[in-house]
Amino acid sequence: MKPRNPDFEAALRASFAAQAMMRTLGAELVAVTPGRVVIAAPIGRGVTQQQGMAHAALPFAIGDSAAGYAALSLQPAGTEVVTSEMKIHLLAPGRGARLIATGTVIRAGRRLVVARADVVAVAAGRETPVATLLGTIVPVAAEG
Amino acid sequence: MKPRNPDFEAALRASFAAQAMMRTLGAELVAVTPGRVVIAAPIGRGVTQQQGMAHAALPFAIGDSAAGYAALSLQPAGTEVVTSEMKIHLLAPGRGARLIATGTVIRAGRRLVVARADVVAVAAGRETPVATLLGTIVPVAAEG
Amino acid sequence: MKPRNPDFEAALRASFAAQAMMRTLGAELVAVTPGRVVIAAPIGRGVTQQQGMAHAALPFAIGDSAAGYAALSLQPAGTEVVTSEMKIHLLAPGRGARLIATGTVIRAGRRLVVARADVVAVAAGRETPVATLLGTIVPVAAEG
Amino acid sequence: MKPRNPDFEAALRASFAAQAMMRTLGAELVAVTPGRVVIAAPIGRGVTQQQGMAHAALPFAIGDSAAGYAALSLQPAGTEVVTSEMKIHLLAPGRGARLIATGTVIRAGRRLVVARADVVAVAAGRETPVATLLGTIVPVAAEG
Repeated sequence: MKPRNPDFEAALRASFAAQAMMRTLGAELVAVTPGRVVIAAPIGRGVTQQQGMAHAALPFAIGDSAAGYAALSLQPAGTEVVTSEMKIHLLAPGRGARLIATGTVIRAGRRLVVARADVVAVAAGRETPVATLLGTIVPVAAEG
Repeated sequence: MKPRNPDFEAALRASFAAQAMMRTLGAELVAVTPGRVVIAAPIGRGVTQQQGMAHAALPFAIGDSAAGYAALSLQPAGTEVVTSEMKIHLLAPGRGARLIATGTVIRAGRRLVVARADVVAVAAGRETPVATLLGTIVPVAAEG
Repeated sequence: MKPRNPDFEAALRASFAAQAMMRTLGAELVAVTPGRVVIAAPIGRGVTQQQGMAHAALPFAIGDSAAGYAALSLQPAGTEVVTSEMKIHLLAPGRGARLIATGTVIRAGRRLVVARADVVAVAAGRETPVATLLGTIVPVAAEG
Repeated sequence: MKPRNPDFEAALRASFAAQAMMRTLGAELVAVTPGRVVIAAPIGRGVTQQQGMAHAALPFAIGDSAAGYAALSLQPAGTEVVTSEMKIHLLAPGRGARLIATGTVIRAGRRLVVARADVVAVAAGRETPVATLLGTIVPVAAEG
């Protein structure tokens, strides 16, 4: 896919840096290409559920952001994106050192973008699929 | 709806207390009744997205937990619950002092529970709907 | 909710009459009010799955149409609607004489409408919930 | 993926043949392999919406069945499947001669199967993606 904003990566990294939630979860941008964004986060002590595994909100948070930024990577300059709706399937417990979410664009419409994200857990160098997300992202004019 | 575990509230509060993610987000159990659970969380500095509003992961986190615990409130003793899949619609920006999620059970099957959650933002004493969730919760035998 | 098209009911009935799929399924418009539309269809011989109950596509078809027309009932004249995405939960087998779907609008945005539909089966005068739908409807300018 | 029922194809074809809804829509089984099932249906006069394109219920019907039968292809003998929940994204209008849905299994759990389906429209020998589905299928003991 072809970016419409030549500086899409800088715009995307600036937006990501402004997301306090990503800092709170220790998430980082791993890769940014047009229509595909990878975000990782540690499965730290502060993000578990009652059984000691990653709370569903962790794969949701980085999967939703990866899908949203994949959508943003194809937008013209001066655009932001918001999630309209997102579905997550939890496929396996989130165990291990960290989660990695890869967001990709399925259909880049003018008004709506359909995007997905696939989330794996990494433990001892081995990847296990833990979640898949599918949802709708809406481009909006950036404020200010 | 009628609880099958007479001590469901204690079991639920113990499970909630063990969710580190809820502490990280500052979430608290507001109300627990059979088939209906209310969870609130502040829209603090650490949970925003790039525009300064609540990141979608915040209403997801407390909405998913409210739906899951609503399901748990109707299970027999010795049961835990896990989310199988969950869809969230973001209805309005999450602005204000805090978010309140009310989870309710739609259908309590033996193998699967369908539950929903409605999330409002509270600002200056006024509530605005910000998200609605609908998903599938699976009862599992508690370990240990 | 307040209609923006004083002739919304006529517009809606004309659109429904043009849906060949609704005729194929024997569906009929039962009630039309602003933001709420009811559609019914018989559980006839031609719409069953392998166990003799209504195929999931039947509650989907009338639930999706009820949600879409609920959205249309609040649009200005000269508008059509298309479904962008829709989730259906099947709550119980579709047994009995017919299905009745009630579509309602949850949030009527300018660019997107969030709507739901609840579907019941009617057997011997008794209603059983069989499905609930939640999705996104997009208003578009009518052609021609 | 490996089938657990050596006669899975015969079981699947018998189940499909018993689905009156598939006959009503003119749908046919195009290909059956373990974990992957293809179903096609014509965009005939009886399945359109108000603008003359395929009603959303058509890609839903064949996509849902393709996903469900992909799940069934991996089950032991004496099993049926039912859809628990299914989400469909409509990506483009369903125009052309026919729709083809390819269902695949994402995760084959003991109690739940996560499956997807991708639906294309075929017009003048060219395929256009029109829908993608993602949902939960539940294996149940076959009656009788």
